[in-house]
Amino acid sequence: MRDLTKRMTRVGLGLGVGASALLVASAAYAVDDETAYIFNSLNFLMHGFLVMWMAAGFCMLESGLVRSKSAATISLKNIAIYGIAGIMFWLVGYKIMYPGTMGEDWNGYFNFGLIWSASDPEGDFSGGYSSGSDWFFQMVFCATAASIVSGTLAERIKIWPFMVFTTILTGIMYPITGSWEWGTGWLDTNFGFSDFAGSTLVHSVGGWAALAGAFVLGSRIGKYNPDGSVNPMPGSMLPLATLGTFILWLGWFGFNGGSQLAMGTGADVAAISNIYINTNLAAASGLVVAMIMSQILFKKVDLSIALNGAIGGLVSITAEPLAPTIPIALMVGAVGGVIVTIAVPILDKLRIDDVVGAIPAHLLCGIWGTIIVPFSNDSATYYGQAVGIGAIGAFTFVVSLVLWLILKFTVGIRASAEDEEMGLDKAELGIEAYPEFTRR
Amino acid sequence: MRDLTKRMTRVGLGLGVGASALLVASAAYAVDDETAYIFNSLNFLMHGFLVMWMAAGFCMLESGLVRSKSAATISLKNIAIYGIAGIMFWLVGYKIMYPGTMGEDWNGYFNFGLIWSASDPEGDFSGGYSSGSDWFFQMVFCATAASIVSGTLAERIKIWPFMVFTTILTGIMYPITGSWEWGTGWLDTNFGFSDFAGSTLVHSVGGWAALAGAFVLGSRIGKYNPDGSVNPMPGSMLPLATLGTFILWLGWFGFNGGSQLAMGTGADVAAISNIYINTNLAAASGLVVAMIMSQILFKKVDLSIALNGAIGGLVSITAEPLAPTIPIALMVGAVGGVIVTIAVPILDKLRIDDVVGAIPAHLLCGIWGTIIVPFSNDSATYYGQAVGIGAIGAFTFVVSLVLWLILKFTVGIRASAEDEEMGLDKAELGIEAYPEFTRR
Amino acid sequence: MRDLTKRMTRVGLGLGVGASALLVASAAYAVDDETAYIFNSLNFLMHGFLVMWMAAGFCMLESGLVRSKSAATISLKNIAIYGIAGIMFWLVGYKIMYPGTMGEDWNGYFNFGLIWSASDPEGDFSGGYSSGSDWFFQMVFCATAASIVSGTLAERIKIWPFMVFTTILTGIMYPITGSWEWGTGWLDTNFGFSDFAGSTLVHSVGGWAALAGAFVLGSRIGKYNPDGSVNPMPGSMLPLATLGTFILWLGWFGFNGGSQLAMGTGADVAAISNIYINTNLAAASGLVVAMIMSQILFKKVDLSIALNGAIGGLVSITAEPLAPTIPIALMVGAVGGVIVTIAVPILDKLRIDDVVGAIPAHLLCGIWGTIIVPFSNDSATYYGQAVGIGAIGAFTFVVSLVLWLILKFTVGIRASAEDEEMGLDKAELGIEAYPEFTRR
Repeated sequence: MRDLTKRMTRVGLGLGVGASALLVASAAYAVDDETAYIFNSLNFLMHGFLVMWMAAGFCMLESGLVRSKSAATISLKNIAIYGIAGIMFWLVGYKIMYPGTMGEDWNGYFNFGLIWSASDPEGDFSGGYSSGSDWFFQMVFCATAASIVSGTLAERIKIWPFMVFTTILTGIMYPITGSWEWGTGWLDTNFGFSDFAGSTLVHSVGGWAALAGAFVLGSRIGKYNPDGSVNPMPGSMLPLATLGTFILWLGWFGFNGGSQLAMGTGADVAAISNIYINTNLAAASGLVVAMIMSQILFKKVDLSIALNGAIGGLVSITAEPLAPTIPIALMVGAVGGVIVTIAVPILDKLRIDDVVGAIPAHLLCGIWGTIIVPFSNDSATYYGQAVGIGAIGAFTFVVSLVLWLILKFTVGIRASAEDEEMGLDKAELGIEAYPEFTRR
Repeated sequence: MRDLTKRMTRVGLGLGVGASALLVASAAYAVDDETAYIFNSLNFLMHGFLVMWMAAGFCMLESGLVRSKSAATISLKNIAIYGIAGIMFWLVGYKIMYPGTMGEDWNGYFNFGLIWSASDPEGDFSGGYSSGSDWFFQMVFCATAASIVSGTLAERIKIWPFMVFTTILTGIMYPITGSWEWGTGWLDTNFGFSDFAGSTLVHSVGGWAALAGAFVLGSRIGKYNPDGSVNPMPGSMLPLATLGTFILWLGWFGFNGGSQLAMGTGADVAAISNIYINTNLAAASGLVVAMIMSQILFKKVDLSIALNGAIGGLVSITAEPLAPTIPIALMVGAVGGVIVTIAVPILDKLRIDDVVGAIPAHLLCGIWGTIIVPFSNDSATYYGQAVGIGAIGAFTFVVSLVLWLILKFTVGIRASAEDEEMGLDKAELGIEAYPEFTRR
Repeated sequence: MRDLTKRMTRVGLGLGVGASALLVASAAYAVDDETAYIFNSLNFLMHGFLVMWMAAGFCMLESGLVRSKSAATISLKNIAIYGIAGIMFWLVGYKIMYPGTMGEDWNGYFNFGLIWSASDPEGDFSGGYSSGSDWFFQMVFCATAASIVSGTLAERIKIWPFMVFTTILTGIMYPITGSWEWGTGWLDTNFGFSDFAGSTLVHSVGGWAALAGAFVLGSRIGKYNPDGSVNPMPGSMLPLATLGTFILWLGWFGFNGGSQLAMGTGADVAAISNIYINTNLAAASGLVVAMIMSQILFKKVDLSIALNGAIGGLVSITAEPLAPTIPIALMVGAVGGVIVTIAVPILDKLRIDDVVGAIPAHLLCGIWGTIIVPFSNDSATYYGQAVGIGAIGAFTFVVSLVLWLILKFTVGIRASAEDEEMGLDKAELGIEAYPEFTRR
């Protein structure tokens, strides 16, 4: 469940912050209700704009890692996704995802509702935060899942079918699985599934949808030779990819920190501080481990593996950024760094063409981060975590697969070979990302 | 008028937040004075740094949309503008613009003063916010107007005359028209003109100044053929332009959200939340509509039109981001998306060479956003809005035209044909933006 | 000393804010303890994420200013530095640097400790802020010093020896000199040395380490001709360098503003406002002065000098961004702009190859900003400032020199001439930053 009431009782966990539930209750009187309401809403707004900024991070990361003939298309997709996700989350997403927060009785599996609007009773601050600030924060999360998909499927998927998939993913699929846990659904109620900021609910969901898409879509022309060897297709502008990673790293303070869902008590802000630290150090550890491993395995420090190492560390800590001590956070991130380093060649062996390495970083590290939650947070169980990972994975993968297949056999999802060779920028947008520079 | 006192009584408007003026008055006692003072000042500082960041957004947008031979010059102009605007706003701008906030008696048309300095009575928090935080917030707005001009006139205007124009625009022209409304001047007092965050006061002002400059300066060599056809001059680095748009989008939460001018009550923070939502969804709607329209009209999704669609949506909602319900905000943004899509070919027909499409996005959408305010905010009238649009537009356009003509006939504003062909980077800066890449 | 207790008494200084120590004491009761605790922690978190963002700023600045064959390597170094600094600051740095804040008795010269962890007594908010928020804020400062080094030594230093140096710089050297002042050490206690946000403690430290490295490493092949003339090696992507400068400028509001160390009183937030203003105007003034001077001296506006002018202004104001009136802040920044303009040719005459101009901007402007503190803040003396500059400079330069020499004669620090010609990207990373673009 992802609302303030429950989170306030869990704030007692954490790095020796150790605020008990009792303390939090009494603290609520030290800071007056309206002041707490402002702080709690500010938490959503400030951390929300940081998460919004992650959309730019994905855009730069993906623009830098594709070939120059696809860089304008991937830019367009990334900004379009962010826009569409917002509209869909207003139209249906929020009401599907958060029946609990809206005080509705529901079956725990599926809830439908149309058109969200703010509902703050006049002058009553007992709700703890403005409903609009909460909507904004949840909305920016919604866009993240779709951003992951665009990276994996880059350079060969047609724009409009991709947009259709994105619309359904952000508007319906992501909110459904989200409701199972953050919306007080069956995973939350029956299995105590715990995913603080969305290693599974956001990142793995994006990863599963991307994986299904990669199966249906196939690899880029020329990526794999008949003998199984791989033709590297290096990213066209690596400083942009690095910038994208920095943006994601910055935005992740909002992603994880804001998921404390409250800043209206001293214990909350101390918890957010610890979340910032764990988030930062898991990223650092994933980065450093990926650098060292790529040096050992490939005799070169691989920049794109290093960047994915940082992202892998971030995804890994996202399921539980509050409870771990720092050494545990470093370990969680380090394993994330290992995962991205070894998974890339494995995916290539399976001929899954994941242009930016999103499946290792988001799907695999998302699973890792989620399954390890009970190691530091004993309110979760390995069994409950496995059920959540499995249920959300199965639902997202199967529904995505069906949807990709429907799109494939109706409008078609793959650009023609000719368009792909020419580059989607020219073929679909009629422009080039870098029209003046001569290409080798 | 743009000060806390008045805004607190208008907070009652909005998306069902419905805080009455009475509530706000009583709420002021729930949060103690000093706490409210901190929140209100923090609103200016946090949202102010987001608006400052928009200067980088304009810089990236314009750098990405000019040809590579002008990219260093436009970068220099953008950062220089931001610096100059700050100095001028300290030297004269603030005192011209905000006589009301400084408690001065004035005629409502023009007020002169030199050198602003902070004035916070010791230990007295009844003013509601630190005067420095307010100055900082208003200063970052000032820079925005000039950024718009640089985009339209790129690739052919000489650096130093442009700097002179910018200095006068930010130091004198923008503050004068700003004082008419936000400074409690005649438009505010006599016509109830309403422009929440500056669709007209900031964006249209920039657009009018740019339009006057475009007339005087003429189009780039080779842009228009004698037979009226247009030679496209595509942007040289579209991922940078996309990054710029993302930066602007992020910064706009500060631009519109911070313009609530207060965060010291629960009703204020709820209002800011609703402003974030409307701002985001108007941008999303402008973007999606521009994408769909460009697909229909031109059979291609045009990335630069899509980016301008988002910006057009943002500019459109800026005059009133609080009062509209979400469907109205979506409609306001959508019309912005339509405007940018259809205005670009019209400008080309008129042979107005607007390099980055700033006139449709900032001038036309600014007018649209301002005229539609009464549709959702009944404290404004269509008549009053039209008077404000007309008066500010006439003043800015005429004074700009005179100023550009004076500059033209004294120091000259247009680079020589030879310099323009070579590119301003080489001609004026003696460097190149991308010296190592071979150009086609 | 850099903790809340002392800073609260110094807040009385400043631009007419004039809160007396008495006022602050009484104000502490107006805002309740827990509310102040949240504000103070939020100050560290919000300003901390802005400082974190500066790492991306250095990365873009340096990526844009190196040649394209080294852009991926410099990107990697910058993100790696940020990660490593965080881990080292947890492992040893914080405990070396802040014995005072941790309430330890120490000798004022060196304190050792291993592994920091948060220590917030349950429900006790008298400490004023969460210890984790403080750690986070100090940690992001630590990364900055190393970022400066990478810029100077770019294009010729091997990756791993650089990483070793960085690890020791961030983990040990920076914390030691930092402890002398911010950790209540001998410079603070005996000499009243004053360095508000780190002109000397952060920027000059980075500059000294870079200078020592430049001596040991030597200049890039082909940079200096035997006859003393210089071959310009222009930056490969100037819009990225401009973006980097904008990011640094934005991040500096966090760097200086957050160094107020408190936001829990009205006087604190008024002080932060004034810090924002002085920081912004010193940067503006450095920028404008550098533009004008480069026009006069070189008959061209030099973009990279202009960018360094802004950075020089920022570094200059960092030692005392609160006490100066605005005219003094403008003067301090202007001198920074002069310094960067005239120092670049001097360094070239000395054949010190500083790829991005970091030594003028960070070392020289850091010295200037620190020595001029007593002009506006009479709690500091010119003598005390000189002692601090000299002691920290001597320590950092000598230890760096020894360390660079050890690295040179053991593992070697300089890439082979062949690797350097080919570019470190290909040689060390096995990739290229822009693999598709033809190079001239």
